[in-house]
Amino acid sequence: MRLAIIGAGSVGRAVLDQASHRGHSVVAIADSSTAAVDPAGVDAAEVLRRKAQEGQVGAAAPDALFEAPYDVLIEATPTTLGSAQPGFGHVERALRADRDVVLANKGPVAERYEDLQVLVDGSEGRVRFEATVAGAIPIMATIAAYGPAQVTGVRGILNGTANFILTRMASESLAYDHVLAEAQELGVAEADPSFDVDGTDAALKCVIIANVLSQGDRTHRLAEADVTGIEAIPTSAHQAARDAGKTIRLVGEVGEDGVRVGPRLIPLDDPLAVTGTENIVRLELTDAGPMHLAGRGAGGPETAAALLADIDRLAR
Amino acid sequence: MRLAIIGAGSVGRAVLDQASHRGHSVVAIADSSTAAVDPAGVDAAEVLRRKAQEGQVGAAAPDALFEAPYDVLIEATPTTLGSAQPGFGHVERALRADRDVVLANKGPVAERYEDLQVLVDGSEGRVRFEATVAGAIPIMATIAAYGPAQVTGVRGILNGTANFILTRMASESLAYDHVLAEAQELGVAEADPSFDVDGTDAALKCVIIANVLSQGDRTHRLAEADVTGIEAIPTSAHQAARDAGKTIRLVGEVGEDGVRVGPRLIPLDDPLAVTGTENIVRLELTDAGPMHLAGRGAGGPETAAALLADIDRLAR
Repeated sequence: MRLAIIGAGSVGRAVLDQASHRGHSVVAIADSSTAAVDPAGVDAAEVLRRKAQEGQVGAAAPDALFEAPYDVLIEATPTTLGSAQPGFGHVERALRADRDVVLANKGPVAERYEDLQVLVDGSEGRVRFEATVAGAIPIMATIAAYGPAQVTGVRGILNGTANFILTRMASESLAYDHVLAEAQELGVAEADPSFDVDGTDAALKCVIIANVLSQGDRTHRLAEADVTGIEAIPTSAHQAARDAGKTIRLVGEVGEDGVRVGPRLIPLDDPLAVTGTENIVRLELTDAGPMHLAGRGAGGPETAAALLADIDRLAR
Repeated sequence: MRLAIIGAGSVGRAVLDQASHRGHSVVAIADSSTAAVDPAGVDAAEVLRRKAQEGQVGAAAPDALFEAPYDVLIEATPTTLGSAQPGFGHVERALRADRDVVLANKGPVAERYEDLQVLVDGSEGRVRFEATVAGAIPIMATIAAYGPAQVTGVRGILNGTANFILTRMASESLAYDHVLAEAQELGVAEADPSFDVDGTDAALKCVIIANVLSQGDRTHRLAEADVTGIEAIPTSAHQAARDAGKTIRLVGEVGEDGVRVGPRLIPLDDPLAVTGTENIVRLELTDAGPMHLAGRGAGGPETAAALLADIDRLAR
């Protein structure tokens, strides 16, 4: 497939790096201010060098990407809430041109799922978004394989930064601010960690799952989710949890009543009690029974692998 | 899709039961002595009643199944070794008639993978076999999604009966024979538990994974696998393991040097230390990182769900 990658952060760059190994060619890549376009395939090494040294991927205007002869748009710009712009506009442009779209950006599928379906219905293009939920862990693929109607419940640890902080607080009896600073130093937390620690990121992933499970009967958005973060958990709460054979985790849940995210007490021997930045999802399936899918929920190469799996599925 | 189910044990009957909910029609089902055939779709309730009360699914000869107008053959007869007959013959007949085949029977993919590929190469039919490895846990689907070339290692608990016995021996300090008898009473172990406790069943699953990972460069068979069972583990070994913070599990491994199955010491906090009949597989993926996939590795409805997921993928 001929790929156009919009967004040249760690995910977009990893797709550029991996695409040729999977038999795809990148005909365009854009960052916020420039684009590199070549119908014969851009020179990945040269683009990565230019981005590292000059801070931009190319010399063309970003809009030139949409003029490239691409089959699939890879939307890897940062997730935004509400109108989900500019990501939603990129998706809209590709679908109106009857191209396929593969998303790493959670905004369009979490915040504007209904609008997205209208665009899909009027397009020859298809939309896939395994990469929006927990990196390469095959959550959307497994729901698709057994059918959304088979899924009666979803519960998971969907934010690695929050889980790292909770794990460290519990194991070392350290205060939240101390562990957050440590996570930022290690690169596990961003300079502005709000979306990770206030539950927004985990909630967006749950909203995406909820939208798929609802099969069009109902549309979910972040605003309707019941979300509590981990900022207010005192160190003493971790000690009390441990005394009871439990641990505190930021758990996301998708159920009949919608999406709920918040700190929950989890037995120490529960599969959901993963440590560090690990993510895990428990799917309850009618015929197939409960299933646990776990792995790295974030990271450039991991997320790119999920995008490429979606691209391969579109190519079949 | 129009399905022909060969084998009317718990798996075949569960496919018959679930197929219509997934939009498929069963035009034929055969047990070892009879077949029920109806081009308009057999009456599932009537077939299940007859099997339960009279011990056979229909009045026609089993061979009548192959004359039915089916799209996909579901091979759910018991796994056999070596020539993998009669399962392999059923698969051959369907592929020569250019029909698709979906397997629950491990024999043809574990013991005769090369012969199977020759048949597939000469047929319009396709072969899928998610259900042969750990029920509905999406192992083959995940390997396919990220590409066999991305998988650098596989390690897992692939036999629920053996894991149940080891779990009980460790937690209750009971002897092997005692726990085996208990497992047989509970229906967790069969009257002849050989394949489960001697490592054969786990090895067959690993051989199937190895065949897929080798991508035709090499064919694996049970005979070349290094297999040790759990029958000779004394109760004292479990106590020693626990004193060291570990537990004994029957671990299957697929690596550069082929397939190895045997009792291994696993740290108690390792994800592989699952309890009871649970199965788990750890995939090491180059870009996507390590991944754990866990759930029920056996059971009629669970295995049928995996077969139906394969059928749906063929239908797309």
